[in-house]
Amino acid sequence: MDDAMETGNLTSYQDRPRTFPNMRSKPTTPLIFRVLMRMNVRLLSVLLFLGFGAIFYVGASTSPIIVFVFSVCIVSFIISIYLTKWVLAKDEGPPEMGQISDAIRDGAEGFFRTQYGSISKMALFLAVVIFGIYMFRSLTPQQEASGIGRLTSASITVFSFLLGAVCSGMAGYVGMWVSVRANVRVSSAARRSAREALQIAVRAGGFSALVVVGMAVIGVAILYATFYVYLGVDTPGSMKVTELPLLLVGYGFGASFVALFAQLGGGIFTKAADVGADLVGKVEQGIPEDDPRNPAVIADLVGDNVGDCAARGADLFESIAAEIISAMILGGTMAKKCKIEDPSGFILFPLVIHSFDLIISTVGIFSIRATRDPTSLKPTEDPMAILQKGYSITILLSLVSFTLSTRLMLYTDQAPSAWFNFALCGLVGITTAYLFVMITQYYTDYKHEPVRKLALSSSTGHGTNIIAGISLGLESTALPVLVISVAIVSAYWLGNTSGLVDEAGSPTGGLFGTAVATMGMLSTAGFVLTMDMFGPIADNAGGIVEMSQQDESVREITDVLDAAGNTTKATTKGFAIGSAALASFLLFSAYMDEVSSFARVPFAQVDIAIPEVFVGGLLGSMLIFLFSAWACAAVGRTAQEVVNEVRRQFIERPGIMEYKDKPDYGRCVAIVAAASLREMIKPGALAVISPIAVGIVFRILGYYTGHPLLGAKVVASMLMFATVSGILMALFLNTAGGAWDNAKKYIETGALGGKGSESHKAAVTGDTVGDPFKDTAGPSLHVLIKMLATITLVMAPVFL
Amino acid sequence: MDDAMETGNLTSYQDRPRTFPNMRSKPTTPLIFRVLMRMNVRLLSVLLFLGFGAIFYVGASTSPIIVFVFSVCIVSFIISIYLTKWVLAKDEGPPEMGQISDAIRDGAEGFFRTQYGSISKMALFLAVVIFGIYMFRSLTPQQEASGIGRLTSASITVFSFLLGAVCSGMAGYVGMWVSVRANVRVSSAARRSAREALQIAVRAGGFSALVVVGMAVIGVAILYATFYVYLGVDTPGSMKVTELPLLLVGYGFGASFVALFAQLGGGIFTKAADVGADLVGKVEQGIPEDDPRNPAVIADLVGDNVGDCAARGADLFESIAAEIISAMILGGTMAKKCKIEDPSGFILFPLVIHSFDLIISTVGIFSIRATRDPTSLKPTEDPMAILQKGYSITILLSLVSFTLSTRLMLYTDQAPSAWFNFALCGLVGITTAYLFVMITQYYTDYKHEPVRKLALSSSTGHGTNIIAGISLGLESTALPVLVISVAIVSAYWLGNTSGLVDEAGSPTGGLFGTAVATMGMLSTAGFVLTMDMFGPIADNAGGIVEMSQQDESVREITDVLDAAGNTTKATTKGFAIGSAALASFLLFSAYMDEVSSFARVPFAQVDIAIPEVFVGGLLGSMLIFLFSAWACAAVGRTAQEVVNEVRRQFIERPGIMEYKDKPDYGRCVAIVAAASLREMIKPGALAVISPIAVGIVFRILGYYTGHPLLGAKVVASMLMFATVSGILMALFLNTAGGAWDNAKKYIETGALGGKGSESHKAAVTGDTVGDPFKDTAGPSLHVLIKMLATITLVMAPVFL
Repeated sequence: MDDAMETGNLTSYQDRPRTFPNMRSKPTTPLIFRVLMRMNVRLLSVLLFLGFGAIFYVGASTSPIIVFVFSVCIVSFIISIYLTKWVLAKDEGPPEMGQISDAIRDGAEGFFRTQYGSISKMALFLAVVIFGIYMFRSLTPQQEASGIGRLTSASITVFSFLLGAVCSGMAGYVGMWVSVRANVRVSSAARRSAREALQIAVRAGGFSALVVVGMAVIGVAILYATFYVYLGVDTPGSMKVTELPLLLVGYGFGASFVALFAQLGGGIFTKAADVGADLVGKVEQGIPEDDPRNPAVIADLVGDNVGDCAARGADLFESIAAEIISAMILGGTMAKKCKIEDPSGFILFPLVIHSFDLIISTVGIFSIRATRDPTSLKPTEDPMAILQKGYSITILLSLVSFTLSTRLMLYTDQAPSAWFNFALCGLVGITTAYLFVMITQYYTDYKHEPVRKLALSSSTGHGTNIIAGISLGLESTALPVLVISVAIVSAYWLGNTSGLVDEAGSPTGGLFGTAVATMGMLSTAGFVLTMDMFGPIADNAGGIVEMSQQDESVREITDVLDAAGNTTKATTKGFAIGSAALASFLLFSAYMDEVSSFARVPFAQVDIAIPEVFVGGLLGSMLIFLFSAWACAAVGRTAQEVVNEVRRQFIERPGIMEYKDKPDYGRCVAIVAAASLREMIKPGALAVISPIAVGIVFRILGYYTGHPLLGAKVVASMLMFATVSGILMALFLNTAGGAWDNAKKYIETGALGGKGSESHKAAVTGDTVGDPFKDTAGPSLHVLIKMLATITLVMAPVFL
Repeated sequence: MDDAMETGNLTSYQDRPRTFPNMRSKPTTPLIFRVLMRMNVRLLSVLLFLGFGAIFYVGASTSPIIVFVFSVCIVSFIISIYLTKWVLAKDEGPPEMGQISDAIRDGAEGFFRTQYGSISKMALFLAVVIFGIYMFRSLTPQQEASGIGRLTSASITVFSFLLGAVCSGMAGYVGMWVSVRANVRVSSAARRSAREALQIAVRAGGFSALVVVGMAVIGVAILYATFYVYLGVDTPGSMKVTELPLLLVGYGFGASFVALFAQLGGGIFTKAADVGADLVGKVEQGIPEDDPRNPAVIADLVGDNVGDCAARGADLFESIAAEIISAMILGGTMAKKCKIEDPSGFILFPLVIHSFDLIISTVGIFSIRATRDPTSLKPTEDPMAILQKGYSITILLSLVSFTLSTRLMLYTDQAPSAWFNFALCGLVGITTAYLFVMITQYYTDYKHEPVRKLALSSSTGHGTNIIAGISLGLESTALPVLVISVAIVSAYWLGNTSGLVDEAGSPTGGLFGTAVATMGMLSTAGFVLTMDMFGPIADNAGGIVEMSQQDESVREITDVLDAAGNTTKATTKGFAIGSAALASFLLFSAYMDEVSSFARVPFAQVDIAIPEVFVGGLLGSMLIFLFSAWACAAVGRTAQEVVNEVRRQFIERPGIMEYKDKPDYGRCVAIVAAASLREMIKPGALAVISPIAVGIVFRILGYYTGHPLLGAKVVASMLMFATVSGILMALFLNTAGGAWDNAKKYIETGALGGKGSESHKAAVTGDTVGDPFKDTAGPSLHVLIKMLATITLVMAPVFL
């Protein structure tokens, strides 16, 4: 059959398109999946039961809070199984839809396997390197005191790293797994009711959101409890509980390492296919988006799943994990400094917050229900309004749960009103998240001035459209930076005035206040991820509707859902950047603590007046520019390959345009997949290697010029400058991309000449440029920021 | 006559185009020009003689080195008068050329007057503000000891500020004055010989280079000598000579303040006209660049003069002034710390280096001579090669003069080999400059891979061209950052190992080493500015040739010169950024010294681990993004006005396209001029106000939270992050713009389909986008960096 398709002898149009056999031929399924898939169901249940039993036993030996966290996670896993059963019970529509959906699924799963195959090889290599480093490094006084040897320390770090990497990969897989199944069900439901389609997409998104958040929380909790029991923490002569969280950094690093490559590979895939398809299809041939005649259309739809669903799953997983761990470290440090009797409240606070996050997000997800009239075909309501309502419910609940948690967990006799200050910090975080969402909407929604002006600039040509879009993106960095600045300063101040003081009587709660604000920001992560996942599922459903040539009315419904999805996608990115900025600042503080304990000298300052430290900053900012360059260039190069392939097919098979000949979708998928895997290596390797290289070079330089700690200082400065530049660059790229996309959509509503006008052509150019900005480089950058923060933490011994 | 033109009743095509009467009607000529112009020549000579006599008398009372500096400057002024006489003696060609050139000159001078009218009003306002601040601020212990009162300190600062502003304005005027006169002479000479045309353009550029550099040097020298004598420096109970340079910062601030607005206004003018003209002319109507039928063509040619010549004159003036002053401050500080007996060598070293710069640049300029066969019409040689040869001669001479200067000025018995280390620092600087030039050429010249790939990406459409250009620009930041990092670290190390130690025996020469490297980088500034000025003159000459419809062969000659000019322009920008990075780092150190003496506590660290300081960095980087956004948006908006006007003229006067009707050039000039003046205010005000505002806000915050010096620290961090982001952003914008321009030129040589092909259209879009990048936002950014550095120095008392 493949051969027949290759030579173009098929006449029936709706035959199942071929997917790429060259990928299939390699048995690249990760071992863990193969083992799990082959296992007997009953055996699996018994193993699961035993596993959970063991976990609960360990949890119970640690703290009742851990038991609570475990229970909430397991309940939310059960709810997510219910959600997926509910979604899968929906019909898959007519066979032509199913065929398209199968092609997408094959493409997505094939790419996922190959991609994660490469990533796991790199992760294994890195694990060996980390093990080697930890076997040769010196121990901290705390470790010596608690009798932890090099082997233990190395094993713990490597084990956490690998667990983080595996969980991050699973989070990505879950996101993709449900989206490739839900898309066709949403398409099918769109033939009946807009509301039902919306509900399916939301519940599918909700499934992966609950799994991702739950996995991040339970993963940290299991590690914490295991190490607690294994190392005999808080028994005499052993480690103190306040030092335990520092052992978890490997988990964060593993998660961000995998998320970075997942986002890079997926981002390159999705946008190269999209840009390539648009450039020939829309611009040259004038056929609509997702038209079945376009040979790159399946690749584009596959891209939505591997780029948006899989990558975003891994990304949010990593965000939550990094934020939990950094907050735990800071909570522990503060509790130690203030000599709080029972520090477990401060340390386990982030886990409790995210347990509540799971609960309130579930409420939010279930608040979006089908209407009483399931037969109405016209979308009677704005889907964005429905989602916003759900979000408002979740936010209100989070205010209650957050205040409750601070009172229960952070009350200490030493500073009786401290919990209230921290509740206010949470409010700061929640407000910050809300403002980020509002600002992003202002700059990317065509209801507002900026996008309208951008659309107007298209009327004077491609050039003015691009200039206006770039200006818009650069300008849009200002307000979020002001918001985050106010948030950092005010949360720090609230923390410092909480009444918690160290032995010398100086206030110490500042950094923990910032950490609490970060948690406030992420306290509705479950619902935000749901809204985010909704976007690509709706996008895919629209593609399937278009490709299976459904009625105009069905297409209208999916178009409205798609537009809402665009907005939610843009806002999630703002949200992710804001939390990345805060989390990175927290991890930076943790890094300084870590260096202090390794070097056995206080390391409390990073003075940029020292030329080498300044140079570190210069290199850090440069890293952001170079990484963005390589990520965008990768998309551009791969898109050019797609353009040439699509042009070739149109020339060699002139029948395609008259629906007489069938395009070879599989070749496009194969080209994009191969190129993405190749192209993700260079920027990814740059991100992993450069902080290590800079640290080592300046360590050596410091050794010869008599500057102790020079390597550590330069890396710290590199990290901070990279964070600042990375936030700004990510905001710029995401907003510009989103605004271009919506300016095009605005013109497509009929403004300024509508579809096919010169303005529209210029707007399509803008949208094309924005694609790698907003879906490849932009979202990779905030993962990069956190990966830099975790890599410096794990690699700290090398810089000393 | 104006009315007749307004109504379009004219039939003769080559009538002198109307320039904007609405500008003329205001008597906006600066007072100083009016007074000088009305003065009797003999009286002027007597005044000049007396003035020079007084200067020499003061100089002789200060130091013989000052007398040497004065003499060199005056000789170079005399040489520049010879150069301008030589240029003006050339013929202006046929009357149609003269008419076009007159129109350009009127437009340029009219805009210059209005622009500098606005700038001088702002400068006067700022002078009053500075005076007020200095009248209320506290004095430093040093000032108290030397009996300098508040009034003296305020008067000195305001006087320096105003002198710097006036000189910067004059530098701009000189640049424009010669270019509007040389352009037509180059056009005319191009009818005879390529070499002669080249020589005229180089000598015209050389004139303004010598005046600009000479003025920067003599200005600082006069101020230094005057204050030296006026304050009785080094007499008992008076100020020490090592503290004198800090009084000069006002001069640097005045210069950079004027340069910033000159660059912004001129940059917006030139690129709005260029983009507007191209979008309608090239893209929509398909007529060539500089075609006389395009109503915006005169505005475009005016823009080259006000944007490139005037602004770059002010810019380079400011670069040299800022660098001299910061190096003098650091030399003084170091000499004081090391208790060197005669510190004048270290303080006056920068003035000597730039005196040699004047001498060797003159040699370089005169090395470019006419060939023996002046009648040859074909360009037999590559003009770039001729310019490169001149540059090589200058570089070689600078190596000799630099080594000589270090031996003569920096020899001290205390550390006999220190001068050699500093000579090596100079070598580091010269090498850095050379590498910057090479890297810029690699990324912007179409002989090399990057631009070729960019051109290739045009073949797949507008979108891929933009993506590739942006990636190229982002990537091009990497190598310059590595070079500058190595330069900073190695010059600092060379300085530190020079053997100069303070009382405690710790090495102190590091920062001065960096300063010497900066001077090495700028040691050929005169010749570099000559090459830079050559660009717009050649560009204008090409425009005049095209508009006066000369033979193809003449056009070929000016095209070749123009291409060489593009390359030299791009390289000068790299050069300017490199020196800005170094100068800003030096000024930052001076700022910390300044704050220490005002606050009377040591201020030696800027610790970014403090949340407020980190926030300052975030705001500093954001400032760069917002400033770039506003600068680019200004061009986009103004260009849209031009597009609409040009479209209107083509519709209302259909005869224009058949050469039957005459376009109304004046209206376009007036529109662009008015818009540029309006648009330069917003980004300029942002740059001036935001560091002051941030400093004051955090000063207040620090007061209430009990953090002394918080304002000063936050501003320091803001400055450093802004410097780093500014360098990267400027490199990105300049290189991307240059590469797009040359990718278009490469396609115009016939590659990938040549002129008129789809690739060419995509390349033109790229060029359009690159215009505001490389000629508005990019060059404004490095002025901005230094303005930030000087404004913080002058405003330091407000932050305490």
